[in-house]
Amino acid sequence: MADLQKYEKQLGKKRANYVPLSPLSLARRTAEVFPDRVAVIHGEERRTWGETYERCRRLASALKDRGVQRGDTVAVMAPNVPALLEAHFGVPLCGAVLNALNIRLDAKTIAFILSHAEAKVLITDREFSSVISQALSRLDSRPLIIDIDDPLSQSGDLLGEATYEQMLSGADPGFPWELPADEWDAISLNYTSGTTGDPKGVVYHHRGAYMNAIGNILAWAMPHRPVYLWTLPMFHCNGWCFPWSVTAMAGTHVCLRSVEPKQIFQAIEDYGVTHLCGAPIVMNMLLNSPEAEVFSAPRRIQMMTAGAAPPAAVLQGMDKLGFEVSHTYGLTEVYGPIAICDWHPEWSDYSPEKRASLKARQGVKYQVQEDFFVADPETLEPVPCDGKTMGELIFRGNVVMKGYLKNPEATEKAFQGGIFHTGDLGVTHPDGYIEIRDRSKDIIISGGENISSIELEGILYRHPAVLEAAVVARSDKKWGETPCAFVTLKSGSSATDSELIEFCRENLAHFKCPKTIVFTDLPKTSTGKIQKYVLRAQAEELKT
Amino acid sequence: MADLQKYEKQLGKKRANYVPLSPLSLARRTAEVFPDRVAVIHGEERRTWGETYERCRRLASALKDRGVQRGDTVAVMAPNVPALLEAHFGVPLCGAVLNALNIRLDAKTIAFILSHAEAKVLITDREFSSVISQALSRLDSRPLIIDIDDPLSQSGDLLGEATYEQMLSGADPGFPWELPADEWDAISLNYTSGTTGDPKGVVYHHRGAYMNAIGNILAWAMPHRPVYLWTLPMFHCNGWCFPWSVTAMAGTHVCLRSVEPKQIFQAIEDYGVTHLCGAPIVMNMLLNSPEAEVFSAPRRIQMMTAGAAPPAAVLQGMDKLGFEVSHTYGLTEVYGPIAICDWHPEWSDYSPEKRASLKARQGVKYQVQEDFFVADPETLEPVPCDGKTMGELIFRGNVVMKGYLKNPEATEKAFQGGIFHTGDLGVTHPDGYIEIRDRSKDIIISGGENISSIELEGILYRHPAVLEAAVVARSDKKWGETPCAFVTLKSGSSATDSELIEFCRENLAHFKCPKTIVFTDLPKTSTGKIQKYVLRAQAEELKT
Repeated sequence: MADLQKYEKQLGKKRANYVPLSPLSLARRTAEVFPDRVAVIHGEERRTWGETYERCRRLASALKDRGVQRGDTVAVMAPNVPALLEAHFGVPLCGAVLNALNIRLDAKTIAFILSHAEAKVLITDREFSSVISQALSRLDSRPLIIDIDDPLSQSGDLLGEATYEQMLSGADPGFPWELPADEWDAISLNYTSGTTGDPKGVVYHHRGAYMNAIGNILAWAMPHRPVYLWTLPMFHCNGWCFPWSVTAMAGTHVCLRSVEPKQIFQAIEDYGVTHLCGAPIVMNMLLNSPEAEVFSAPRRIQMMTAGAAPPAAVLQGMDKLGFEVSHTYGLTEVYGPIAICDWHPEWSDYSPEKRASLKARQGVKYQVQEDFFVADPETLEPVPCDGKTMGELIFRGNVVMKGYLKNPEATEKAFQGGIFHTGDLGVTHPDGYIEIRDRSKDIIISGGENISSIELEGILYRHPAVLEAAVVARSDKKWGETPCAFVTLKSGSSATDSELIEFCRENLAHFKCPKTIVFTDLPKTSTGKIQKYVLRAQAEELKT
Repeated sequence: MADLQKYEKQLGKKRANYVPLSPLSLARRTAEVFPDRVAVIHGEERRTWGETYERCRRLASALKDRGVQRGDTVAVMAPNVPALLEAHFGVPLCGAVLNALNIRLDAKTIAFILSHAEAKVLITDREFSSVISQALSRLDSRPLIIDIDDPLSQSGDLLGEATYEQMLSGADPGFPWELPADEWDAISLNYTSGTTGDPKGVVYHHRGAYMNAIGNILAWAMPHRPVYLWTLPMFHCNGWCFPWSVTAMAGTHVCLRSVEPKQIFQAIEDYGVTHLCGAPIVMNMLLNSPEAEVFSAPRRIQMMTAGAAPPAAVLQGMDKLGFEVSHTYGLTEVYGPIAICDWHPEWSDYSPEKRASLKARQGVKYQVQEDFFVADPETLEPVPCDGKTMGELIFRGNVVMKGYLKNPEATEKAFQGGIFHTGDLGVTHPDGYIEIRDRSKDIIISGGENISSIELEGILYRHPAVLEAAVVARSDKKWGETPCAFVTLKSGSSATDSELIEFCRENLAHFKCPKTIVFTDLPKTSTGKIQKYVLRAQAEELKT
């Protein structure tokens, strides 16, 4: 008699064979296996994995002693310093949820976030005492304040009841922590810097954080014991999950309070840096710095970038400088990067321009994500792989947020139809690689034709005098809209508007070319994204 | 008012953000991203990932057409051929459970397994038609038989209703498969070759298979697109999960029907092999083959071994030959290797002997396993890290079987106290690395003192004339037991029993040295493990 339930009966989950997935396990393993390896470098400070893990447990113990409970929020306002790295483990070790604040935010927004997140504790770096004081004065009830008194901080006051080091010194280095009861429990909270309305609080869970910690390793084929330079802000999607990835591979975290070319080159030479991440602006900064001329890479450096497609000239420049650039794509809602322009070895034989145009694509899902495709707006089914049919980029899988905190309407909207809607528009090429054509609101419709502002920006970036370019729609009586380009020239370079328009016409259908060029510095959000809504307003105010 | 449930409310699992973990996702991703890369090499055959994924879907479709349902068992009797690799995906793609049979088993045991597993289908390679016919004749009801008619098979008859290729040719290459309803669903069934009693059926689930597929990649820091040589039997713990690991990294599977040095060296030269796995016997075979003298490694080859500690001479020999050996540890119940002697870079500076003694240790858990320690037999707590206190090696975490099929008593015993009991005894060194001293039943108690047969074997292996050695207890009126060593000498070498005993006395406490030496070939199980129970019986029958 066949037993149809034979693979289920008496074969359920047990303590021996099921534990919640959590990045906390990765820290414990590395501290146990490599206790004497350097975990953190910060200025003159060096701490081993044994010490760092102890400090994380002290942090958890200290928070618990101060009344922090499972599901409470602990906010941190800090640049890339050891305390923020430790918080990525220490806060969830006591069951709490880490809310790393964007250090470029204004007092009003910070106050909104602390209140919305119901932060019980705020750990804040001295450098930001002024904006934090202002934020706190707006709150009815203040969280407990702990100061990070970093000797490398140049300015600022102490605001709280104790410093971070004082708090740790009295705490238990052997704090007996437990894994979360459920891998679906929240581990962190990251507010998106939306251009309109209040910021939304994106909730990450332990399972997703663990999966994308691994996702980064697989997508990048990270080696054992990488030396990782913190050029990407740790407050940005939890540093794209790299606090956990680097720890899993028993790597070394090299902290940096600020992103300056001199310090970056110095760290590569002094500490054996092998990996780093950063927006394209970081590459621009490196390439255009005087230090680049004397820098000689002691080894090939792996760099991951996201946020905008790296132009050919930048890729070539970085290659010569010794950096191998991987182009990834993601959003706060999907734990940072979760798609990559996975490189086919044979592409390396193409011309620099062809290589750059291939690499400019957002590419394919990480190994750990289930679905990434361009969805037809009506059917939500994948569009044809023809490089032409536009649709919305969508994700589905284990590396998608729990949802927005206390905002069920926004959560429901984001997950409509059982997929996560990115709001980015693009196409799928015949080889299955996806390329963004625009944010929904960035499409320019001129004489009934869609114009991709990104495609146009890509052309402008190819011009040798252009440092940065952003294209938005400008209202036009005849055409409805026309493209208006805002351009920053490289220092020492020059170009006229008609030269640039002519350059575009040589490379693109004429109807897609800008009718207006404005030479200016580009307004940016605190995370370095160009604020197109500001430019759109400026474009409307231009005299005809 | 604080909202204590804010991180749970309306933030549950949804279709957009939760999918079951399964290795099936990895095959789909690789086929989509690298459809034209070579997935499988087998003799003159080359198949791309696009083709291979299609064949897996055809297999699933064909099985479903033949009545196979979710939770049914599909058995495969085959060496390392493409059909068995495809079965690792194709069988679970239709919701069924893969039972890969050990090709060295006898007809009676095969009949027991097919009956106990309730196999609905048996896919069997022509080479094994004789033993399979005998096995089938013992069964009341036969499974559906499908023949693998491999052109590289030298012998055997066709037994079934159709060949594997005939079955695939009529099936649907676009079969619309679904992920398992639950990641806890069974994916495979592997019978252990226990030395007493009926074999036990170890059940793996999708979650665990996925986790150890990744575990191998992290522990080995596998690069993108490895070329993996199938020297390890795929029927052995699902090839230690490497069918799934190699696929996740878009690698190439190089099949081998049998393990012969000439073919191995040839494949390394012809196909660009970068990685392989195998028991220490494979290393011995390579080193002692005439081909080793003319082989020149075109690159460093990564080799993973497990089952016995590789001796210093073997490690040195392999190093010279161009192989970097990683020593891992595991059992069928934990999906193959799940601990590794994770190498500290500074150890590479030590003497060859010191390096070998460090590498002989079973080491530390994989990144993906939660607990691996030596448990005190009374308290089940970790023993002190003193390199002396003995206890039982235990595992806990996500890479532990569901349990034994239809054997709740054995499952309960294995999971007693909320941990998985390996039955191996060992110590924890001061650096936290674990070393096996013996299987519980392999400890020799002489004059009240425990003697580790493994320690003694380690010494014997160092003798230049010794090819293989196994030590068991022999009853002794005076001492209770004394060590009895069974030794195979290298061809062309010679040594007397008194020479070997003297050699042991120079290196070890005298009471631990063998009292008896027997020169002989060692009896082995079908998976290459030395059958100590046979030797124990022989030892008892020796004349005093």
